Amino acid sequence: MANELDKLQDNLNYQFSDLGLLELALTHRSAEKNHNERLEFLGDSLLGFIVSDSLYQQHPSATEGELSRMRSSIVNNASLAAIAREMRLGDHLRLGSGESKSGGNERDSILADSVEALIASVYLDAGISACIKFVNNWFAAALQTGNDLEQKLQQQKDSKTRLQELMQSKSLPLPHYEVTEVNGAAHEQIFKVSCQITSLNTLQQGSGSSKREAEQEAAMHTLKELGETP
Amino acid sequence: MANELDKLQDNLNYQFSDLGLLELALTHRSAEKNHNERLEFLGDSLLGFIVSDSLYQQHPSATEGELSRMRSSIVNNASLAAIAREMRLGDHLRLGSGESKSGGNERDSILADSVEALIASVYLDAGISACIKFVNNWFAAALQTGNDLEQKLQQQKDSKTRLQELMQSKSLPLPHYEVTEVNGAAHEQIFKVSCQITSLNTLQQGSGSSKREAEQEAAMHTLKELGETP
Repeated sequence: MANELDKLQDNLNYQFSDLGLLELALTHRSAEKNHNERLEFLGDSLLGFIVSDSLYQQHPSATEGELSRMRSSIVNNASLAAIAREMRLGDHLRLGSGESKSGGNERDSILADSVEALIASVYLDAGISACIKFVNNWFAAALQTGNDLEQKLQQQKDSKTRLQELMQSKSLPLPHYEVTEVNGAAHEQIFKVSCQITSLNTLQQGSGSSKREAEQEAAMHTLKELGETP
Repeated sequence: MANELDKLQDNLNYQFSDLGLLELALTHRSAEKNHNERLEFLGDSLLGFIVSDSLYQQHPSATEGELSRMRSSIVNNASLAAIAREMRLGDHLRLGSGESKSGGNERDSILADSVEALIASVYLDAGISACIKFVNNWFAAALQTGNDLEQKLQQQKDSKTRLQELMQSKSLPLPHYEVTEVNGAAHEQIFKVSCQITSLNTLQQGSGSSKREAEQEAAMHTLKELGETP
């Protein structure tokens, strides 16, 4: 057992002072009464904070909606399960016999929950700084995806400027943007925007989590329609 | 202006090194382009973590479901707005003229968002320890409500034991508990449980965020039916 956990700790690149915390993080509710769900509760909130903080610092010009979207693309069952597989957590999970037989150690939801529990166990073992380091290390690639998303948004941003410059170069009136629809709860609104150039008889739509983002998409589609490379 | 902010800082019991962060936290999106929504994004996740951590430490025997319920009772628009009013944030908010005229500085959603933004501004001003101290100070009463909730759960826990003891004292078979329904998403499941005592012809229902909690409520109702004080 100790050897097993040593292997896991090597792979995690983190050595626990209190091995009991690691064992608890690996124990599914199907295995025994003292299981990892309380740790999962704490780890979920830790992960939310640490990822939000990284995104906030890394993307000083992103809106709240853009930050939320990046966070959702990083913190979800599928991406957490992928990280659990990289960590090889599945080999070390303690499951009840039913869960074990039905392949619980490969199930996304169980793997994702274990990653959250593990994050809390690192926090309880060594404090917030160690936990931030651990999360940023394991989520580096996922945080990069957040970066890619912003780059995409950045490219879209250029569409509006490019379309404006195109109109000016042809001495035509500027495009007219209008919000046509807003859907969804306060923190996850989806905006639909139209971009109309009457003089060229074009009318395109765009959508996004902010008005700005939707405008950029509508501008990109207009550029395409006008035969410009987006 | 400086005097105004001094008064607020006195009331908050926190002095900012960077007053710009306080000003940003107080600036609603209706007032100007550089507003508090990014801070709100960060503050929401900070508050989630700090409250979860406090609850985790304070309630070593609470289940994940009980901790989640306590957190929801502490972190919601109404309770955050109440704390904003204690802080007297409304007097210092910077709103656009439309929002200002329509009483935006008394609206729960705007007040709640400002508290979250303020929490992030303290974090950015002085780090996580100062932020934890700030939150625990302002949320002490709300965290106490969490305690009250656990006491109530604790009393309910006793119901099952008391019912069992009652049956044993009468040399009757023990009650039969059965899960009759499970609803809701993974982290917010609601369990319905029946408690049947065939020999006494009783059948009661209970519900809760865990099987255990639902059983306790069903036992409490059975005790009532049997004329026992719950």
